[in-house]
Amino acid sequence: MTARFERIALIGLGLIAGSIAHAARRGDLVGTLVGYARSEATRAKAAEIGLVDEVAATAAEAVKEADLVILCVPVGVMGAVAAEIGPHLKPGAILSDVGSVKQTVIDAVAPHVPDGVHFVPSHPVAGTEHSGPESGFATLYDGRFTLLTPPEGTDQAAVDHLAAFWRGLGANVEEMEPAHHDLVLAVTSHAPHLIAYTMVGVADDLRRVTHSEVIKYSAAGFRDFTRIAASDPTMWRDVFLNNKEATLEILGRFTEELFALQRAIRTGDGDTLHAYFTRTRAIRRGIIEAGQDTDAPNFGRGLPPK
Amino acid sequence: MTARFERIALIGLGLIAGSIAHAARRGDLVGTLVGYARSEATRAKAAEIGLVDEVAATAAEAVKEADLVILCVPVGVMGAVAAEIGPHLKPGAILSDVGSVKQTVIDAVAPHVPDGVHFVPSHPVAGTEHSGPESGFATLYDGRFTLLTPPEGTDQAAVDHLAAFWRGLGANVEEMEPAHHDLVLAVTSHAPHLIAYTMVGVADDLRRVTHSEVIKYSAAGFRDFTRIAASDPTMWRDVFLNNKEATLEILGRFTEELFALQRAIRTGDGDTLHAYFTRTRAIRRGIIEAGQDTDAPNFGRGLPPK
Ligand SMILES: NC(=O)c1ccc[n+]([C@@H]2O[C@H](COP(=O)([O-])OP(=O)(O)OC[C@H]3O[C@@H](n4cnc5c(N)ncnc54)[C@H](OP(=O)(O)O)[C@@H]3O)[C@@H](O)[C@H]2O)c1
Ligand SMILES: NC(=O)c1ccc[n+]([C@@H]2O[C@H](COP(=O)([O-])OP(=O)(O)OC[C@H]3O[C@@H](n4cnc5c(N)ncnc54)[C@H](OP(=O)(O)O)[C@@H]3O)[C@@H](O)[C@H]2O)c1
Repeated sequence: MTARFERIALIGLGLIAGSIAHAARRGDLVGTLVGYARSEATRAKAAEIGLVDEVAATAAEAVKEADLVILCVPVGVMGAVAAEIGPHLKPGAILSDVGSVKQTVIDAVAPHVPDGVHFVPSHPVAGTEHSGPESGFATLYDGRFTLLTPPEGTDQAAVDHLAAFWRGLGANVEEMEPAHHDLVLAVTSHAPHLIAYTMVGVADDLRRVTHSEVIKYSAAGFRDFTRIAASDPTMWRDVFLNNKEATLEILGRFTEELFALQRAIRTGDGDTLHAYFTRTRAIRRGIIEAGQDTDAPNFGRGLPPK
Repeated sequence: MTARFERIALIGLGLIAGSIAHAARRGDLVGTLVGYARSEATRAKAAEIGLVDEVAATAAEAVKEADLVILCVPVGVMGAVAAEIGPHLKPGAILSDVGSVKQTVIDAVAPHVPDGVHFVPSHPVAGTEHSGPESGFATLYDGRFTLLTPPEGTDQAAVDHLAAFWRGLGANVEEMEPAHHDLVLAVTSHAPHLIAYTMVGVADDLRRVTHSEVIKYSAAGFRDFTRIAASDPTMWRDVFLNNKEATLEILGRFTEELFALQRAIRTGDGDTLHAYFTRTRAIRRGIIEAGQDTDAPNFGRGLPPK
């Protein structure tokens, strides 16, 4: 099964699209790369830095003749973009997206996919806190997982071709049910992001602790929250609005547990605290062993220069 | 003002003590380093790797003749250790500690400090998730802040000498009121740690999402929480039990805000979410500019090899 596509159109030219572009070229997985983004500024920047071979003036124009079209826009506009490009998709083409939520994206996009076009939703579980056309890099997907959530009845050859492409970009590829995907990501990503945003908001608000103090003493744990909470507001607004149920369910569980630990603090129940803090270490070990993080203390920050 | 001490005793030989030892040698700030830890295993390991020049058999023996004694044990045992060593401290010596909480440590230690010994509490706001005698490294304090919280009436020459020592270890040094210290750290460290432990606990508990899924898809945000939640359970139990009021106050604020954001998600109020996620970015910028974190995406994980 080939991993290559002759003509790929990227709609949206931010972190995820840019990293696809860099990695596709690194792997020689593409003939011609076409790109489109909403703003003139982003299109001009993408052209200037040669992120894609051709910058199109409209989304419709970008997808014409493309063998693979990937929607790399915020989750909330996937439906609108699909409606716009639907009529212009080439018969036999694969349409994909990289949205962080899958069920609502499928619901929004599928109605606009013409017969003969294969819709294979995907989600690369990798990212950084940066965004925009200059933030992408070729190694973003190396060793990370990309989840495909094809609706029942999707053409298997199309799924296999897209899977091979993502492997060529460096990713491990797995398939998952959309609803289960949304629950898993609520745990590993969406709830943690909301929590980090909230904690940073609390620090920002507190009058008795100055911003300067928060900044200077952030190395004690808080700065990791600020990195997560520096992510793009539009992307994250759309994620929460489109993964409501799962996110709210996980946050409900979270609050319940947090209250139990708060009670343990209030009553001086050290045993409960100690047992809780001990039990969670196995997950960290698993993550290190699975190559999904470094064991260098502090992610390697503050280590002796090599 | 000299930064040097002829004889330094470290009580407790974990991450913080080990890093003091490495940095003190790097800066030529010490004649002889003596160390003591509770367990035979830690003392043997410290001797084997040459962490200190002499390993003492008891805390009392370790502090004899020392010009500077630093308590590097969990916050909850500071008082007991101080009671043990108090009678053996050399007149004119400086006694310090590195506890992450200051008011309760001062209350527990001060009664055991004999006349003529200068008690200068300190807190290096730097750390990693690792612990034990092999986890220390010389650069841990470089560019980070160490807070001194001397009780009123403390000998100024002793404060200045200890401040010079910490600067020699690489740290920026500032003074702060103990109660204010405990509030600031509740925001920048204690509440974030409890929140991270809680979120990891929730993931660990959830039956419908497997451990393997949590581990594989952790790169989406969760893994930063697992790093924080991999910290030593004893240290953190003691921190929460000794900084109850401030931690519970901050967690109360946190829950309030979290509920407001949950309501915005439930009602589909995207504007509130977007505004909240935008406002908090200034703090991140401040942290980068103050040199307290790297702007490399993802802390430099997953970047192209240089
Ligand atoms: N960042 C992550 O960590 C991550 C990880 C996995 C998946 N994802 C998903 O990937 C997608 C893109 O995220 P990203 O991080 O690459 O975001 P990004 O860097 O902010 O880029 C988003 C791009 O979408 C364009 N865009 C927005 N609305 C559009 C519209 N109506 N029509 C055409 N283009 C439009 C933007 O154009 P302008 O620049 O002109 O506004 C921009 O080029 C999202 O669905 C997100 O959920 C993100
Ligand atoms: N880790 C951080 O991020 C950080 C940052 C700033 C300040 N602090 C503070 O620094 C202190 C030490 O933390 P750490 O990270 O260095 O911990 P650590 O690596 O776990 O080391 C703690 C040391 O204390 C010893 N100890 C425990 N109870 C003792 C007792 N009753 N008598 C004598 N020794 C005893 C332990 O001995 P055994 O090995 O024999 O058990 C061990 O050597 C704590 O107060 C903590 O709040 C920590």
